Amino acid sequence: MIKQVAAQSKNLITDVPGVLAGNAHDPALASGVTALIFDNLAVASIAVHGGAPGLRDTALLEPGMTVERVDAFVLSGGSVYGLDSMGGATAFLREKGRGHPVGGIRVPIVPGAILFDLLNGGDKNFGRDAVYWRLGFEAAAAAARDFALGSAGAGYGATTENLKGGLGSASALTSRGFWSAALVAVNALGRATIGDGPHFWAAPFERGGEFGGLGLPSPWPADALGLRIKSTTPEHTTIAVVATDAPLTKPQAKRLAIMAHDGMARALRPSHACLDGDTIFAAATGTAQIAPAIGDQIEIGACAADCLARAIARAIFEANALPFPGALPSWKSRFARRS
Amino acid sequence: MIKQVAAQSKNLITDVPGVLAGNAHDPALASGVTALIFDNLAVASIAVHGGAPGLRDTALLEPGMTVERVDAFVLSGGSVYGLDSMGGATAFLREKGRGHPVGGIRVPIVPGAILFDLLNGGDKNFGRDAVYWRLGFEAAAAAARDFALGSAGAGYGATTENLKGGLGSASALTSRGFWSAALVAVNALGRATIGDGPHFWAAPFERGGEFGGLGLPSPWPADALGLRIKSTTPEHTTIAVVATDAPLTKPQAKRLAIMAHDGMARALRPSHACLDGDTIFAAATGTAQIAPAIGDQIEIGACAADCLARAIARAIFEANALPFPGALPSWKSRFARRS
Repeated sequence: MIKQVAAQSKNLITDVPGVLAGNAHDPALASGVTALIFDNLAVASIAVHGGAPGLRDTALLEPGMTVERVDAFVLSGGSVYGLDSMGGATAFLREKGRGHPVGGIRVPIVPGAILFDLLNGGDKNFGRDAVYWRLGFEAAAAAARDFALGSAGAGYGATTENLKGGLGSASALTSRGFWSAALVAVNALGRATIGDGPHFWAAPFERGGEFGGLGLPSPWPADALGLRIKSTTPEHTTIAVVATDAPLTKPQAKRLAIMAHDGMARALRPSHACLDGDTIFAAATGTAQIAPAIGDQIEIGACAADCLARAIARAIFEANALPFPGALPSWKSRFARRS
Repeated sequence: MIKQVAAQSKNLITDVPGVLAGNAHDPALASGVTALIFDNLAVASIAVHGGAPGLRDTALLEPGMTVERVDAFVLSGGSVYGLDSMGGATAFLREKGRGHPVGGIRVPIVPGAILFDLLNGGDKNFGRDAVYWRLGFEAAAAAARDFALGSAGAGYGATTENLKGGLGSASALTSRGFWSAALVAVNALGRATIGDGPHFWAAPFERGGEFGGLGLPSPWPADALGLRIKSTTPEHTTIAVVATDAPLTKPQAKRLAIMAHDGMARALRPSHACLDGDTIFAAATGTAQIAPAIGDQIEIGACAADCLARAIARAIFEANALPFPGALPSWKSRFARRS
């Protein structure tokens, strides 16, 4: 099952066959939505390891629950208001004839998660305008193989403690040819970088200079381990999707989501705190058809953790600062060499 | 709340006031037990993030359950047979007058976890001899401020993919003076070291040369990220306890256990796989008396993750090889310089 990869790989979650992603964002609002749509239904589950999650229609993702497959996942800014975005994506999918047929009506299954970006300087006085519902519809309508990283979609208004956050993605193939990939909106309580320098905690996992190729700092900064967390705003939560083309069962998808959290632990310091809504969705499209052995399952999980760590660093590496007074700088504005 | 620390700190979980630890092991069996006893009851919880746990009396540790405090935790080798060891520790505690008084009888609460070391070369033909029950009693009876690391207690028969595993511990103080510490028996599916060299994944978190002071490898080994997992035996599972003197609530203790798993993610590759029983108990003795603010809780959790990463490296660093043909080498025998 060797695949022709190098030429087509975009190092995005959409490298997994049958997975499309779309962004929508509003610069004045300084927030946005990312929709991940599966051409066919994907077996799905979830692992919520943060202490302050904001989720919609996720109870069904537990292995004991009846529905096994979803049409899409939605990641959104906007905190509780962002929980409207899954509704917009659901309406779009219905228009396209998607969803479980139940009697005469279609029921698309679209779980999602939000992050808190309500205090990032954008205009949040949307009143009775269901702005996130509309952004959710637009994100789903924009779904394609190509999509932007950095200040885009659910990562548009995201931040970390010291730098602008954003949207990231990365993909990999296991030794036996299964795809494993990640998509993430990084709005971390802490930092993705080490000390005050440009190096990422995810450096050991970088491929092909995808986030600058700087490696690890040498000498190691004396202040690398001090706890640096946002103290003035509750703008926390990193939300992600990991996907594979292996035909996993729902319990195996749950295990994939759990293993992927290791990538968050390695790329962010701290993670999984009481103020984080850190949540990972896992999806298995099954297009690879060959059943993964135990060793494959472990490798898909380890790859997903690596991809998530890489995607987190890419999210910060690709982002641009918000155009508001006092906005956090982007990694590029602080550290990129002008050539 | 500044504490006089440097002189008394042993860099062990027993630095947390009111926490004692004891080991018992049987060289012919090539396995053992570690008991962690709280002078007074400790508020406790658990986070099970591995896919193949072996646990005893842990359902009560969930925040929705009634019992909030435990007398002790027990970590054990022996897989399902090791689940007898908590019984031995319970009997010891009863003899000492410990346990909730229920009518005329004492009921000590002693949850515990096991790891699989049944194929490590030791003599496992114990038949009707409740060997782990006896080892559990002996470990509890040995509980003191000092205890051995490496090939000791629950880590006596433990292994990793490439090196002898073992028992590890580490402690730290937060910036506001709360203790946060870890105890671990490392029997990982994968490796704690990078590539084929002596450097530990936990190197960024090392303090004072506690596991050799080698730092990170430079140049970075080309094979650092290849998946190396035990393929011929099911000898997996890393089990740990983290403890603090902060007066946490039971839900806060649950959060502490979850955050501590980040240390396992950072120190072992892979972790939390379907074949691992990776489990962390959290205990809050409350002797610090000052209620931890949100920032303290996050720092205690981040410190616990760091301590667990350090404890995992120390477990391997301190271990000695088992004296059986084909036994895995110890880190020291492979890498330590003779002086």
